Amino acid sequence: MNDQEEYWVGFDLGGTKMLACVYDAELQKLGSRRRKTRGEAGQEEGVTRVIKTIDQALADAEKTRTDLTGIGIGCPSPVDMERGVLLEAVNLGWENVPIQQELESEYDCPVAVLNDVDAGVYGESQFGAASGAQTVLGVFPGTGIGGGCVYRGQIVHGKNSSCMEIGHVQIRADGHLCGCGRRGCLETEASRLAISAEVAKAAYRGETPHLQEMVEPDLPELRSGVLANAIEAGDVVIEQIVRDAAAKIGIAVANFVNLFAADCVVLGGGMVEAMPDIFVKSVHKAAVKSVLPSFADSFHTVVAELGDDASVLGAAAWARQLCRSVS
Amino acid sequence: MNDQEEYWVGFDLGGTKMLACVYDAELQKLGSRRRKTRGEAGQEEGVTRVIKTIDQALADAEKTRTDLTGIGIGCPSPVDMERGVLLEAVNLGWENVPIQQELESEYDCPVAVLNDVDAGVYGESQFGAASGAQTVLGVFPGTGIGGGCVYRGQIVHGKNSSCMEIGHVQIRADGHLCGCGRRGCLETEASRLAISAEVAKAAYRGETPHLQEMVEPDLPELRSGVLANAIEAGDVVIEQIVRDAAAKIGIAVANFVNLFAADCVVLGGGMVEAMPDIFVKSVHKAAVKSVLPSFADSFHTVVAELGDDASVLGAAAWARQLCRSVS
Repeated sequence: MNDQEEYWVGFDLGGTKMLACVYDAELQKLGSRRRKTRGEAGQEEGVTRVIKTIDQALADAEKTRTDLTGIGIGCPSPVDMERGVLLEAVNLGWENVPIQQELESEYDCPVAVLNDVDAGVYGESQFGAASGAQTVLGVFPGTGIGGGCVYRGQIVHGKNSSCMEIGHVQIRADGHLCGCGRRGCLETEASRLAISAEVAKAAYRGETPHLQEMVEPDLPELRSGVLANAIEAGDVVIEQIVRDAAAKIGIAVANFVNLFAADCVVLGGGMVEAMPDIFVKSVHKAAVKSVLPSFADSFHTVVAELGDDASVLGAAAWARQLCRSVS
Repeated sequence: MNDQEEYWVGFDLGGTKMLACVYDAELQKLGSRRRKTRGEAGQEEGVTRVIKTIDQALADAEKTRTDLTGIGIGCPSPVDMERGVLLEAVNLGWENVPIQQELESEYDCPVAVLNDVDAGVYGESQFGAASGAQTVLGVFPGTGIGGGCVYRGQIVHGKNSSCMEIGHVQIRADGHLCGCGRRGCLETEASRLAISAEVAKAAYRGETPHLQEMVEPDLPELRSGVLANAIEAGDVVIEQIVRDAAAKIGIAVANFVNLFAADCVVLGGGMVEAMPDIFVKSVHKAAVKSVLPSFADSFHTVVAELGDDASVLGAAAWARQLCRSVS
């Protein structure tokens, strides 16, 4: 396979947008196409849109279907990596979609299905902030808190499902009620929603003067950039709220390090990118405080480098790795 | 290598005893030798005793040093698996012992160094209670609480150290002070010492009549068998104390399952063997209650089957696996 030309497609199926990129054998990008996901149109229509997007990315790269070597597709949901099935994408309202089978019969090439956070962490481990690490833990706080682990070049996953539900590690026994039915999960304590709710409370008390100059008085969805700007302008209460949330992520990271001796922790997503210093320092400090002393110097905490490319590139790289390992 | 005869040594270096077994290519036991460890005599003397024990096990199996294919040695401490170094065995007072190098120069064959709990979990995953599972979590509550993980046939470990410090997963933020300096670690909440201390308190209140008939009034070290007998005789308070401790182990297991989707949890060690039903049911019930609903049916909890053989057999099997994967 090394002697002939290879063309790979990486696909990032997001809750709101989908993105297809075409790469060469060295994973240099040759073309791409973006489109709205429109999950509400149903999963059959969704697969049709995926195919249309891949075809248009191929056209953008001046390639055809027969040029394709393989496809990797990251999904916003747990997946069964062995059977190549999207299990349940709550954001899209899709379940049990046999994506691997549908795309393989359409394109007649191998297709790898993986979780989008796993794809991003794999991308960072191969080409980004975690290059060279043996055990990489990725944590992506956002609406929820996604996690992924790459151990010695392999995405860690369960027998019938992807895993790494770090958002559901329990941080406080008596914490907030989580959507999963338990209390005090990391996600309910440190996601963007948790931070925004604390900020709204502080705003009500009049503790966030700079923020209140920037946004409507009813504080609609607080974007990460707005929070970062308010902190920059001097809203120390908001900074402390973000630090507290990051410290909770640090406790979950410490539990992971105690179990798996991760040597690199990658933080990513919109909130981290908007406030990288606060997140990296607070997570690392809290994690160091909570790991066993012998692990205190054994890991570093870094910000993801690949941004929106991480998942799509990681998906293509994972497909390439799987195909090469069997050929 | 498959066509010639193979002879493997498995070694279990324990805090009080050491055990060497000689196996054939199919890991059928041909001979063995047991000896006191005497850690206090120092690590140089200790290595001499290891060598003497291996030689006598070889003699017992009617084999010689030149017959040896490889050695696997499990240590009661963190180890650096890549360099083959025992890092720090608190029970023995040994540190930075380059066991791999010392035994390789003595026997002129490959030597694999691993943690004893890892060796036991590997043994159970290959030949015991966890055969056929993809992701095995082993938990061995005793004086401390040891843990190990075998993922797709590989012992999970860190870059410079073994890991799986499940005894130091935090269960209660405001819990008992742990030897590691933190509060509420699983080990301080659910080890034999934690259970014994709770039982002593109950005994002081006069709540353990059957136990008090069986042992001295000052309750010296409470052995697992004594606790099991007292429960059998009707000391319901002791049973509840054991159930509570097992439920805490279940919470730590749940955190692990949420991250790694283990499909098999193996419980072992003297306490579990003395009270297998109480441990398996309480751990599993608490774990099921604490995992994400989608994982509730994804794992089973079982009792280790190999007893004292698990570590020594697992160490030999790991050495065999490493040698075969490079040859």
